[in-house]
Amino acid sequence: MSDRKYTLGIDFGTESGRSVLVETRTGKEIATSIYSYENGVIDEKLPLDGEPVQLEPEWALQDPQDYIRTLQQTVPDVLTQTGVNPEDVIGIGIDFTACTMLPVKGDGTPLCNLPDYRRQPHAWTKLWKHHAAQPEADKINATARQLKQKWLARYGGKISSEWFFAKTLQILDEAPDIYNAADRLIEAADWVIWQLTGVEKRNSCTAGYKAMWSKRQGYPPHDFFKQLDPRLENVIDQKMSRSIYSISEKAGELTAQAAEWTGLKAGTAVAIANVDAHVSVPAATVTEPGRMVMIMGTSICHMVLGQEECTVEGMCGVVEDGIIPGLFGYEAGQSGVGDIFAWFVNNCISDDYQREAREREIDIHQLLEEKAAVQKPGQHGLLALDWWNGNRSVLVDVDLSGLLIGATLGTKAEDIYRALIEATAYGTRVIIEAFEKNGVPVDELVACGGLPEKNKMLMQIYADVTGRNFKISAAKQTPALGSAMFGAVAAGSRAGGYDTIFEAARHMARLKDEVYQPIPGNQKIYDRLFAEYVRLHDYFGRGENDVMKTLKQIRDEVS
Amino acid sequence: MSDRKYTLGIDFGTESGRSVLVETRTGKEIATSIYSYENGVIDEKLPLDGEPVQLEPEWALQDPQDYIRTLQQTVPDVLTQTGVNPEDVIGIGIDFTACTMLPVKGDGTPLCNLPDYRRQPHAWTKLWKHHAAQPEADKINATARQLKQKWLARYGGKISSEWFFAKTLQILDEAPDIYNAADRLIEAADWVIWQLTGVEKRNSCTAGYKAMWSKRQGYPPHDFFKQLDPRLENVIDQKMSRSIYSISEKAGELTAQAAEWTGLKAGTAVAIANVDAHVSVPAATVTEPGRMVMIMGTSICHMVLGQEECTVEGMCGVVEDGIIPGLFGYEAGQSGVGDIFAWFVNNCISDDYQREAREREIDIHQLLEEKAAVQKPGQHGLLALDWWNGNRSVLVDVDLSGLLIGATLGTKAEDIYRALIEATAYGTRVIIEAFEKNGVPVDELVACGGLPEKNKMLMQIYADVTGRNFKISAAKQTPALGSAMFGAVAAGSRAGGYDTIFEAARHMARLKDEVYQPIPGNQKIYDRLFAEYVRLHDYFGRGENDVMKTLKQIRDEVS
Repeated sequence: MSDRKYTLGIDFGTESGRSVLVETRTGKEIATSIYSYENGVIDEKLPLDGEPVQLEPEWALQDPQDYIRTLQQTVPDVLTQTGVNPEDVIGIGIDFTACTMLPVKGDGTPLCNLPDYRRQPHAWTKLWKHHAAQPEADKINATARQLKQKWLARYGGKISSEWFFAKTLQILDEAPDIYNAADRLIEAADWVIWQLTGVEKRNSCTAGYKAMWSKRQGYPPHDFFKQLDPRLENVIDQKMSRSIYSISEKAGELTAQAAEWTGLKAGTAVAIANVDAHVSVPAATVTEPGRMVMIMGTSICHMVLGQEECTVEGMCGVVEDGIIPGLFGYEAGQSGVGDIFAWFVNNCISDDYQREAREREIDIHQLLEEKAAVQKPGQHGLLALDWWNGNRSVLVDVDLSGLLIGATLGTKAEDIYRALIEATAYGTRVIIEAFEKNGVPVDELVACGGLPEKNKMLMQIYADVTGRNFKISAAKQTPALGSAMFGAVAAGSRAGGYDTIFEAARHMARLKDEVYQPIPGNQKIYDRLFAEYVRLHDYFGRGENDVMKTLKQIRDEVS
Repeated sequence: MSDRKYTLGIDFGTESGRSVLVETRTGKEIATSIYSYENGVIDEKLPLDGEPVQLEPEWALQDPQDYIRTLQQTVPDVLTQTGVNPEDVIGIGIDFTACTMLPVKGDGTPLCNLPDYRRQPHAWTKLWKHHAAQPEADKINATARQLKQKWLARYGGKISSEWFFAKTLQILDEAPDIYNAADRLIEAADWVIWQLTGVEKRNSCTAGYKAMWSKRQGYPPHDFFKQLDPRLENVIDQKMSRSIYSISEKAGELTAQAAEWTGLKAGTAVAIANVDAHVSVPAATVTEPGRMVMIMGTSICHMVLGQEECTVEGMCGVVEDGIIPGLFGYEAGQSGVGDIFAWFVNNCISDDYQREAREREIDIHQLLEEKAAVQKPGQHGLLALDWWNGNRSVLVDVDLSGLLIGATLGTKAEDIYRALIEATAYGTRVIIEAFEKNGVPVDELVACGGLPEKNKMLMQIYADVTGRNFKISAAKQTPALGSAMFGAVAAGSRAGGYDTIFEAARHMARLKDEVYQPIPGNQKIYDRLFAEYVRLHDYFGRGENDVMKTLKQIRDEVS
């Protein structure tokens, strides 16, 4: 045992899980270990011997054993790497993708682990990006509208096919035997906590953002579930739980079994589970209203805290205790960001540029950034709507599509690349303005994720377009740091941790020194371009011209 | 001398001139000879020794000696190639780019051939694509509107910077000494006829389409020119001519000098000059109303004949005797077609596709066509506005720009390629509908130019989108064949030619056997997509949303 205490953050991602060992006093990430899931994302056939079990399109499953293997491999590895004494690891926190859920027996055994159910796809974990439950989501939305359910407003008026009850209803619709055999339906995040501590304790973040729960109103009423499907009437009481624990609470202590898996000490404090995006907020130093955290990667997840519950157009959700205890956590999102840039680079680059990038041994993104960064705002004469993957906030419409306007015979790849980046920045500004209009202030932006570090031009454009300072989380693994912070809170100050997430954030979270500040001259031009963006956004996005939907409809008819 | 008679068509293009020797009875093209202009397109500096004379941006000049060299080199060459006896060459016709004009002395000597003026850019031939006279075109349009000039309606309400008086006014504005020294200002087409025959006889095609002349009203009135610039008041009588000769008339006979240049017999009949696009109409078998000829290449020039003068929105011009004597020739155009496809292929193709095309040793256009041709209409879910190079007809607005809508993360290069081709077909349909709405029927389409032979998918799309049969001229060199046909008419039937262009067309012009017919199922889908195109066309093109102009304005401000 030493003076120096550590906490462990475990981040369960889409393709892999990772453990990060963090020094509790400073927040320094001292070791990382990554496990690539043996069965990865299961989207073609189940990973079984014998006759193959094919999956339908839009399915995406995971194997819960991959979560256990993550624990077994990465935790011992960080201990070995660092030589840290398990006695000095005082707490554990985890975060997960969401909604990622699975059916289990009363003792926590996943149905897919049982021979009777192993060959049934519905017995496996449904990953967040399992998109086959759209009919069920449509039915939930229609029923909620019909019954004038007030909770719908907390989700911008529409719930997603990715969420808990859409997935649940799909199991019931397509595999009632699995639904019946499942004693519990549970977020994988909470299931891992159960495996670590031996107790089933569900977290307020996934309950609130993915399962329509709220601290004040609880779940939607019986009547709603009954109307949705009579067999669902008692789903909460039969297969879920009304006991929801706020993130930052302690879930329990490490069992002997889990201690054996991990090499940690039995009895180590374990925090209530969290979600990868949301746990990043305090890890990015944000524990108060006014500063928006943006997880920037293939898409953007925007999170901001508020003192009260406001209705904001097209947000993904507002949850009390959803991000920071005692505050309302607001979430919004852009469904295509890095994905759009990747699409462009994969499909629309000239031979010359490919060659130049190869010869100079740089990434094609770098080459395009270099060429685009010397431009002034507005110089390329282009404007885009960033809807290549639909629009999540504020329009909440997957059937919208991308638009590029202003092309001439002189338009070059870097012009389009820059216009696409700007379009995503305009999309963020629309979200910020929706928040502010409805009483949720956004004074400053903090980025984490893969994009910000790679692309300085992008950061400056976001600062210029939004007119706000833009900072970057200093963490190498922001979600895992956030989990480690909650682990420190679960341990408490007497064990060498912290008593609140506010304190943990003060000591463990840091931003990089660089700040992207809006440049007034650029802002002025972007204000004019943003006005044009908003006009196109409203024209094509709010029903005046439904050509995007018509095109998809014709496409679907002829395909 | 033999029974078999020949006529010669000489086509003066942008980079080269070509002679085609044609069998008069059958229209068979028996030999071609091409001369690449020694001085090509002069757009950087004058081709002179000594201190360089730089040109301003947007300038494009030619050297009239290149036209003489074309005669000296290509005519003897086709005679040598074929062994045809010059006695059997009964007529000559020429066609030219337009408006391509030059200042000359009273004896026809180009000012640029005289030492006093040789170092002055304004002394040289201004090529059709000399685009430096936009301020002058603007002034002409403003003055014409102010004075309520009726002739403006014949040109869709706007004249172009490429036309005769815009170029003339630029000479006057910037080089009044050249203007004063010029006894004649003349189309290069008519200048070549002058060189061949010794007589200055101006053709009705360029006079009508490029110099605001009409058979019934003549040129615009003195007052108009006086108002434009007092020094221009008498430009027609001082430096041009009110004697305009209809295409299909005989200009004169080959002089001894020209006979020496060409190896032809002095006294050979020479037709009034013509323009490359317009001369292609009878060469594509069209001498009657109802069939539209489309010269398809980097852009499209659409020509159709009518019995009377109608006002059609945004057409480029209507000229009595402009294409076929006794009929009104209508011209419209799309300013970007093959140019847009080339832009796309040069800028927006993935590495994979480049590699595939290289490995299979096919053109990238072929590869994209192959991939796009298997699609059904509407399957890619995209729609484009084909305004990468502005819109010539019917909106007549160079400040419009390209638009692509409907892109998703699954959109591929061949999808965009097909959408761009479809967009140009929609653009053609808008033009056809404008003609029909105003009393000029278009029942069938005939293509000539480079694009139709290369791209069968494109032809089928045009047939499906327009709902009209689409045929292709059989000539290898359609303009030169047309010129040879007018040469045969200049010779007349007694010499072994023809008495009218109608007879010449019946015998000398042919279409290919293949006919692209609209496929009803495709038409039905394209009708729906066209309705969406028209809506976007009107929304962005008719002032409801001027974002394209705003983007160009901002671009110009910041650049």
